[in-house]
Amino acid sequence: MELLNKTISRIEKIDYSLSNRTQKRLDNLTKPQGSLGRLEELAKQVVEITRKDKPELKDKVIFTFAADHGVTEEGISAYPKEVTAQMVYNFIRGGAGINVLARQAGAKVVVADLGVAEQIQKSKFKNQNFIDKKIGLGTKNFAKGPAMTKQEAIRSIESGMEIFLAEFEKGIDIAGIGEMGIGNTASASAISAVITDKPVKELTGRGTGIDDKTHSRKIEIIEKAIALNKPQAKDAIDVLAKVGGFEIGGLAGVVLAAASKRVPVVMDGFISTCAALLAYVIEPKVKDYLIASHCSVEKGHKAILEYLGLKPILDLSLRLGEGTGAALAMPVIEAGVKILTEMATFQDAGVSESI
Amino acid sequence: MELLNKTISRIEKIDYSLSNRTQKRLDNLTKPQGSLGRLEELAKQVVEITRKDKPELKDKVIFTFAADHGVTEEGISAYPKEVTAQMVYNFIRGGAGINVLARQAGAKVVVADLGVAEQIQKSKFKNQNFIDKKIGLGTKNFAKGPAMTKQEAIRSIESGMEIFLAEFEKGIDIAGIGEMGIGNTASASAISAVITDKPVKELTGRGTGIDDKTHSRKIEIIEKAIALNKPQAKDAIDVLAKVGGFEIGGLAGVVLAAASKRVPVVMDGFISTCAALLAYVIEPKVKDYLIASHCSVEKGHKAILEYLGLKPILDLSLRLGEGTGAALAMPVIEAGVKILTEMATFQDAGVSESI
Repeated sequence: MELLNKTISRIEKIDYSLSNRTQKRLDNLTKPQGSLGRLEELAKQVVEITRKDKPELKDKVIFTFAADHGVTEEGISAYPKEVTAQMVYNFIRGGAGINVLARQAGAKVVVADLGVAEQIQKSKFKNQNFIDKKIGLGTKNFAKGPAMTKQEAIRSIESGMEIFLAEFEKGIDIAGIGEMGIGNTASASAISAVITDKPVKELTGRGTGIDDKTHSRKIEIIEKAIALNKPQAKDAIDVLAKVGGFEIGGLAGVVLAAASKRVPVVMDGFISTCAALLAYVIEPKVKDYLIASHCSVEKGHKAILEYLGLKPILDLSLRLGEGTGAALAMPVIEAGVKILTEMATFQDAGVSESI
Repeated sequence: MELLNKTISRIEKIDYSLSNRTQKRLDNLTKPQGSLGRLEELAKQVVEITRKDKPELKDKVIFTFAADHGVTEEGISAYPKEVTAQMVYNFIRGGAGINVLARQAGAKVVVADLGVAEQIQKSKFKNQNFIDKKIGLGTKNFAKGPAMTKQEAIRSIESGMEIFLAEFEKGIDIAGIGEMGIGNTASASAISAVITDKPVKELTGRGTGIDDKTHSRKIEIIEKAIALNKPQAKDAIDVLAKVGGFEIGGLAGVVLAAASKRVPVVMDGFISTCAALLAYVIEPKVKDYLIASHCSVEKGHKAILEYLGLKPILDLSLRLGEGTGAALAMPVIEAGVKILTEMATFQDAGVSESI
């Protein structure tokens, strides 16, 4: 709890006084005022977060956390739970979607096991980007009781913080968050239903692709789990412990630690945005450090983004997770920053201004 | 007319038989089927266009064509017409928005003067990416008669083809189109009103930022120009000659030449999409070679995209032009292709498939 409290206490309010000065600079660049739309907004947000007039987004790191979910024993997923571990190996080998898209974006992928249900044989690989922070062999089935203890919930958040802070020492200009965990859309639906106070039905999608019957059962099980465990909406650690997941807690920890270091955080899809939502409940100031990369096909995602008041950059009908949306959005955010730092002004270029 | 006819005759219908095979390959990658949404669609389109199973989008070239418009003497622009030439110098020096975003995307910018109203002192620069294909010192004021002769219209299209074909010799995997020309949104509104048969009012926006009064006058002048010149909707060269611009003709030429060489073309905003619309009227087969990068704030843009049945990749409230949207979308398209060519299959990775 010490790291958690220390980190939260270090999160500062964004300095909006920088916004006007940045807008003036943007308006003096050789383009009609405001004509680069969202790119200009993103540039301003990065200046406000980093408090640098000319920020650079060179070191990009995507945190892809994996864990298993006891609720999969209810048979509500399209894939067997073994896939979580199999995909971790795929991440380490570099063959997954996030690896391809991170390479394209020039981002590093940090893969961490927060609670996969089997031991990852990391000795088989030379990959330095895999971190073992296993809290347990998957959560318990939250349809029958709490997913984890309160201590485990705190440990998952603090583990995410530790992973972020270790990477921060090596250099991070912008962080992305993503996940892998068969069954974790069920956990995300439960968490977001509790926090936003919207019906489970409105927040529960098809995950990796389940049929109508399984979808109905998934909704029922989540409703039952909430009624049984009674998570307290204002206590994020209680919500995480009762219906969360280890990787979700870990990513909430990354968000809090990144905000404490004034690093922008790019969220991926439904589950990672749900982790950011937990971080927001813990410390509402994190909101201004968040950037929504895309709007997922999972309908709960849109609901959380609206709840947080965040506008996604991309709308590409993605529903993969892993951090893939964050990898796609990072170059767009960087483009916005480069507009601010590399474009010529009207004076530099000898271009006449508006009549 | 010879180059134009030869190029058109070489444009082939897309081979859709490749689509199923590509989808099968996409479905066998370690991700839930269809979970990368538009990225998968883009990958398929690039395979169909290039007829390569494993295409590469290494060489990216953005064609930014500039020209002046006689209609600016009606006072319907927010910037003085001198800005066209000033911005060409800015492009050559590398200080404009398109230069910054193209660098970020790893794309080359080919700047060409198709009809700027003053001589560009290219001897001052060592830049090899500037091409002089000046057809005239700006078009004539189409509020008073045709913008150019039919011969000039053909010459502008063929000039664009020549520029593309010279670059193609050096290597192009994907082309982007963009423009600069004070007054050219008026020309784009006129062209799209004639071709789509929609009211001018619905297709005319604020350009680089004009007030209500100027906006009303702009609409009136375009309506008057159409009534006076009577462009024939089915004859793209007639439309281009009567209410078009040299850079718009040039970009239509790039689209036709790119399609003839099976190179995907990424359109930027309202004006470059309007150039693609002219190319489409000349040869409807080009449609399948087109990729819409974004949906601009200029309302005519949305109307043409709908007319062509194209779905934009980004929605970032851009309205700059120059090819900036194309530069932002190219990495996303490349990401889609890399998903297809670099991701591991279920077999490769030993990952279990859907239950």
